[in-house]
Amino acid sequence: MTQPYIGAAIRRKEDRRFLTGTGQFVDDVKLPHMVYAAVVRSPHPHANILTIDASAAQQMDGVIAVFTYRHIEALVKPRPIPLRNRSYPGIERFLQYPLASHKVRYAGEPVAIVIAETRYLAEDALDGVVVTYDSLPAIVDAWQSMQNDVLLFEEHGTNVAYEFTSSLGDVDQAFRQADYTRKERFHCHRHTANPMETRGLVASYAPGRQELTVWGETKVPHFNRRVLADMLEMPEHRIHFIEPDVGGGFGVRGEFYPENFLIPFAAMQVGRPVKWIEDRREHLTAANHSREQVCELEIAAKRDGTLLGMRANIYGVLGGYARTHGAFIPVSTAALLTGPYRIPNYGWDVKCLLTNKVGMGTYSAPGRYESCFFRERMLDMMAADLGIDPTELRLKNLIPPSAMPYEVGRTRPEDYVITYDSGDYPALLHKALELVGYEQLRSKSGLMQDGKYHGIGTACFVKSTGTGIPYEGARVAVVGPDQVAVYLGVATLGQGHETVMAQICADGLGVPLDDVAVYHGNTDFMPYGGGTSASRVTTLGGNAVYGAAQQVREKILRISARYLDVRPGELEFVQGHVYRTGVQASEPVLTLGQVLELAGPASPHHEGEVGLEATYYFQASQECYPCGAHAVHVAVDPETGKIDILKYVIAEDVGHVINPLLLTGQAIGAAAQGVGATLLEELVYDDDGQLLSGTFVDYLLPTSQEVPDFELAILDLAPSPINPLGVKGAGEIGIVATGAALSNAVSNALGVQVRALPLSPHKVRELAARRNEA
Amino acid sequence: MTQPYIGAAIRRKEDRRFLTGTGQFVDDVKLPHMVYAAVVRSPHPHANILTIDASAAQQMDGVIAVFTYRHIEALVKPRPIPLRNRSYPGIERFLQYPLASHKVRYAGEPVAIVIAETRYLAEDALDGVVVTYDSLPAIVDAWQSMQNDVLLFEEHGTNVAYEFTSSLGDVDQAFRQADYTRKERFHCHRHTANPMETRGLVASYAPGRQELTVWGETKVPHFNRRVLADMLEMPEHRIHFIEPDVGGGFGVRGEFYPENFLIPFAAMQVGRPVKWIEDRREHLTAANHSREQVCELEIAAKRDGTLLGMRANIYGVLGGYARTHGAFIPVSTAALLTGPYRIPNYGWDVKCLLTNKVGMGTYSAPGRYESCFFRERMLDMMAADLGIDPTELRLKNLIPPSAMPYEVGRTRPEDYVITYDSGDYPALLHKALELVGYEQLRSKSGLMQDGKYHGIGTACFVKSTGTGIPYEGARVAVVGPDQVAVYLGVATLGQGHETVMAQICADGLGVPLDDVAVYHGNTDFMPYGGGTSASRVTTLGGNAVYGAAQQVREKILRISARYLDVRPGELEFVQGHVYRTGVQASEPVLTLGQVLELAGPASPHHEGEVGLEATYYFQASQECYPCGAHAVHVAVDPETGKIDILKYVIAEDVGHVINPLLLTGQAIGAAAQGVGATLLEELVYDDDGQLLSGTFVDYLLPTSQEVPDFELAILDLAPSPINPLGVKGAGEIGIVATGAALSNAVSNALGVQVRALPLSPHKVRELAARRNEA
Repeated sequence: MTQPYIGAAIRRKEDRRFLTGTGQFVDDVKLPHMVYAAVVRSPHPHANILTIDASAAQQMDGVIAVFTYRHIEALVKPRPIPLRNRSYPGIERFLQYPLASHKVRYAGEPVAIVIAETRYLAEDALDGVVVTYDSLPAIVDAWQSMQNDVLLFEEHGTNVAYEFTSSLGDVDQAFRQADYTRKERFHCHRHTANPMETRGLVASYAPGRQELTVWGETKVPHFNRRVLADMLEMPEHRIHFIEPDVGGGFGVRGEFYPENFLIPFAAMQVGRPVKWIEDRREHLTAANHSREQVCELEIAAKRDGTLLGMRANIYGVLGGYARTHGAFIPVSTAALLTGPYRIPNYGWDVKCLLTNKVGMGTYSAPGRYESCFFRERMLDMMAADLGIDPTELRLKNLIPPSAMPYEVGRTRPEDYVITYDSGDYPALLHKALELVGYEQLRSKSGLMQDGKYHGIGTACFVKSTGTGIPYEGARVAVVGPDQVAVYLGVATLGQGHETVMAQICADGLGVPLDDVAVYHGNTDFMPYGGGTSASRVTTLGGNAVYGAAQQVREKILRISARYLDVRPGELEFVQGHVYRTGVQASEPVLTLGQVLELAGPASPHHEGEVGLEATYYFQASQECYPCGAHAVHVAVDPETGKIDILKYVIAEDVGHVINPLLLTGQAIGAAAQGVGATLLEELVYDDDGQLLSGTFVDYLLPTSQEVPDFELAILDLAPSPINPLGVKGAGEIGIVATGAALSNAVSNALGVQVRALPLSPHKVRELAARRNEA
Repeated sequence: MTQPYIGAAIRRKEDRRFLTGTGQFVDDVKLPHMVYAAVVRSPHPHANILTIDASAAQQMDGVIAVFTYRHIEALVKPRPIPLRNRSYPGIERFLQYPLASHKVRYAGEPVAIVIAETRYLAEDALDGVVVTYDSLPAIVDAWQSMQNDVLLFEEHGTNVAYEFTSSLGDVDQAFRQADYTRKERFHCHRHTANPMETRGLVASYAPGRQELTVWGETKVPHFNRRVLADMLEMPEHRIHFIEPDVGGGFGVRGEFYPENFLIPFAAMQVGRPVKWIEDRREHLTAANHSREQVCELEIAAKRDGTLLGMRANIYGVLGGYARTHGAFIPVSTAALLTGPYRIPNYGWDVKCLLTNKVGMGTYSAPGRYESCFFRERMLDMMAADLGIDPTELRLKNLIPPSAMPYEVGRTRPEDYVITYDSGDYPALLHKALELVGYEQLRSKSGLMQDGKYHGIGTACFVKSTGTGIPYEGARVAVVGPDQVAVYLGVATLGQGHETVMAQICADGLGVPLDDVAVYHGNTDFMPYGGGTSASRVTTLGGNAVYGAAQQVREKILRISARYLDVRPGELEFVQGHVYRTGVQASEPVLTLGQVLELAGPASPHHEGEVGLEATYYFQASQECYPCGAHAVHVAVDPETGKIDILKYVIAEDVGHVINPLLLTGQAIGAAAQGVGATLLEELVYDDDGQLLSGTFVDYLLPTSQEVPDFELAILDLAPSPINPLGVKGAGEIGIVATGAALSNAVSNALGVQVRALPLSPHKVRELAARRNEA
């Protein structure tokens, strides 16, 4: 079967509407009689609620309703926002309710919601909801949390929401027998994704048919629909989620937040459509934060650098509640802490700690960015201690391709084992070193040139993808002679699925690419859907499209053969036409339109299988493991703390490539986010639990000035052996090693050891000052 | 398998929203920036268009656009509105285009469309579109049309749009050998359905995704979508039809009319949603007319009343164009003219004649109301001639149940033969006679009492149902532990499908009725759909739901048996629970929710069949034939022409009854329409081709004063043997014999022969006057 489209650098089909300004985002949804919501949020990080008096707000012109926890309670049984996918025993005691009932646990927590005729009136009315609080001391870091002096949930007697301890091999023996050990404490800073478009929802309820339509649900619409149905006590099939175009997700958008209940609930109560668009301040102070972790890491090795063992205490700094991901992020840190290296003995303890900050959720490559930073920093320290070149040390310990598939073991509290499916890790590092010019740069390491210290950093990584729900479905339907529709269960957040899935369908089915249209983002399209996270869409959804397309293709051949009275093997279906096998140069024997007629419900030829349509669920036996290496050359100005990235090389292997053009965009976009996150972004809290960087004045995003011209090498050395397309998922891959590679480079440049991120200018100046001390 | 719901008199689920005023009809669809359409219509019944100058309209405040044929032509290839389902060779030359190009052929024909900010502005601007015409002579009846002096389509040289001649048996010999023959000319009057809600459309185009959504498409949405897709030259899957609640169809609503192209086209062109709601004048002057036919009928019989043969010339008086049904209505008259009687020799000729009137389409029981009137009148005349009681004559000739299935023969220009599936015709007539008290009333026939002549009339009928597309599909999906969704391909026009289909699903699947929700009216729900006409929904769609529900039920048992490691036969599924067969009193072994989990895409138990969902297409081998008899006792005031209906009895057998409550409503509603149509309604044209009864002042609808208390006997003697539910379709059955029974009763009362409908007061006075003459 020819595959003209898979692997081709095809431009994005969806860009036509974005470039012509005809995309439809959630804020473009306008409904008659629509009203607007604003959320009353706690100014206190930790306080008991004494009274809520909404009467002033309710009397304001244009205010339609104010809802508090008491109002909800009077109408439906309030339920907390549940964990998604995974369960972590005990953590469900610390879930968040859509509105605070008697206590607030972070500044920004929703206490009431105001519905008014306009956004302005709704926001003005926030002050009319008078809440009196009894303030309590705030907990802002892991150590305070663990003291349990101040408890966020008094009734549970602890701030440790979840703990998980386990090991592989014999860790103590490894450390006993080691020639070399070192122990360090690393700190990854709190930051979060900032998609260009903030979150937003429009909800409209039709009381006649008792149907609720919600626009703006993205990422995991089927999961969120089930949660909302439970909360509203209505059947799932009466709730329709429609995903408009989306301006970026990166993990933060689309989880079930308080507003995901409050807006539909309000729409049902006030009998008018309700819109809420998150503003940037709300995004920074109420949407999931991520990344904040402390890792006490200990390593054991032979004198020659051979790794023997690793021990880690990982402290995940959750916020006031366990949000949808509960313990997932620090657990993920532990799961892949050994990375692409053979480290046979590994012990770890994960603690999830409540603090009076915003709840923690995922940001691209959750736990993997962090673990890569912890491990790769440690390897560079160890290389220095042992007098080995850090890339030599890596090459010595990287799992060789001959060891694939490589079983790491059960590093998560779940029932399946981590097994790297394929990958040539040394080749990726060699490629990165070659491209960055490692040999030439080595001589410059740590030297000053034009007032800046030059340094080089490398880092290797592997990332699990397709985690979460281990299946995805798709429906492929031939609708007309030159019309094929693909229906996805997954959401799309801007990645280009309409193009990639069309390529996969066109090849799997055997039709011209232009005949294929991809539909997504409507919970009515598919009964099940695992959502868009963990780089799972192409891995699971792509293989589902491929499977469905192939089933339709087989049906086309089966029906044609029956009609022509030949064996199916005597026919082939190419570019929308049925040919006698091997005589494709000749005239087609049937067109797709003719076969569609044969398959029609009134045709005598369908034999019980009506229509040219198939739904296929691809089920993954395990995860995929894309991998790569970063190498970066920086020049650090010790006076200003500014880091110039002179060269940034990424070598990655994400399995078989569907569309190199889109992959390049994904890889570079992710790396750009990682550079920004590493150099600039930080959600800083003061000791009282107030967020100091709640606007873009203080929370700095990278601009074209900070983002380097990445040099990208996409190696297609190791297609995944565990799915038909050989793909591994690509969305988050580029970000994983950015913190690690940059911190190694800066350490190398300044001759100091970076132990904490971010590498913001004032912190780099402090590091540079320590160099002078040394 | 227990069937607690099929056959039960369950109240309509949909009435909750209608009774609480929360139904959503097309005029309730309001979109931001919506604009409004009004149609410029020809005031001339027949004219050449000389010029169209829209400049004055275009300059009016609030007018957004004016479109004429020339504008359409510049953007897409204009295509005529095609025939639906059937083809009649040659008639396609006379199809209508959405706008007139150079000639108008009926008063009311669309010439241009105006789009403006409000409905008022749009209507005001109609006068600003200046059209100059060169008027031509108008043709208003069958005889003028056949002369071909004036031609509607000069280029085709004839006004006979289609002709079909055929026979069964040896007609000439039958007439030669007959003891008795008679020839009559009957005339059925032009009238049409007037649903409470007029037609209406809202169209909205999203240029980004290139998707068009149209609200208000009913009856045959899948067919109409294909037509619209062809006309707009866009893929079908990019067009979404959404059917809101609908205030009645009766055949007239939902066919593809000019506006069904013009409104979506305009929405795409102006870039804003466009609404058009038909007003009553437009409905009467532009929506399909129906019924107008002349029938020259000749009958041959033995002296004892045994029917030997029948000859008919049927003249269908079409309008200026062949609309979607082309020749269907007069062809249907011919097809069932012999009715429930054994008439072995039958010859017929059908002519479809163009006239300068509104195009002809279907109205409930199209052609059957007419043929029943023609035949049953003739039988009463013959009974009088032969001195036989008319009910005796009928009983002598009715096909006995022992002759079932009874092959009538190929009475249509189609490839399948009419075969009555089942029915006890004599029992139905006996039942009607018994209920009306025929024996007692006979003595009163023709006598005056209190200034009114009393008469009794009877009529027997059979009606084909499930014609048209001989399949229908449905999808049944278990969505939650107590949530089952049924998706229909058919539209619903107020009949109660949400209740009936839920009953069928609940029994076919084995769940409580309240757990079932029925979805319909969205072309995205099902890829195919034959629409709602010809009383086909329960016959075809109901059996599709039943089949799909049974498939889901079998799957539930299959998965449960696999999981429990027993044979499927050892389990039964009752009211949402799996039990060991025969021990239903005991605890269920599995709940539906548990089985749903087992079938989930991540479950190891689904074995390739994910979800509890099935799509099933029921294919009919032939049509069904519900049947019945009407008997009516009238008192006619010769002075006023008013007819008092003292008793109206309907005995009908529509096969197995799903819901007697809804069937009663359908039967009585249809009969009420038939009474109104027979006594009051007429679309009267003057000799110049102008409609004189274009408002409800002149076109009279029945009120509670005219509609009698019907006495209804639903006999369930003859379930259809050709589908699993044994149903036959019921919607149109009640109307068939109304014209026949009432005209026989009036003839009987006045001692004259009614040869033409309607029996409006002034016509009854004329008839009464003839009595005095005689």
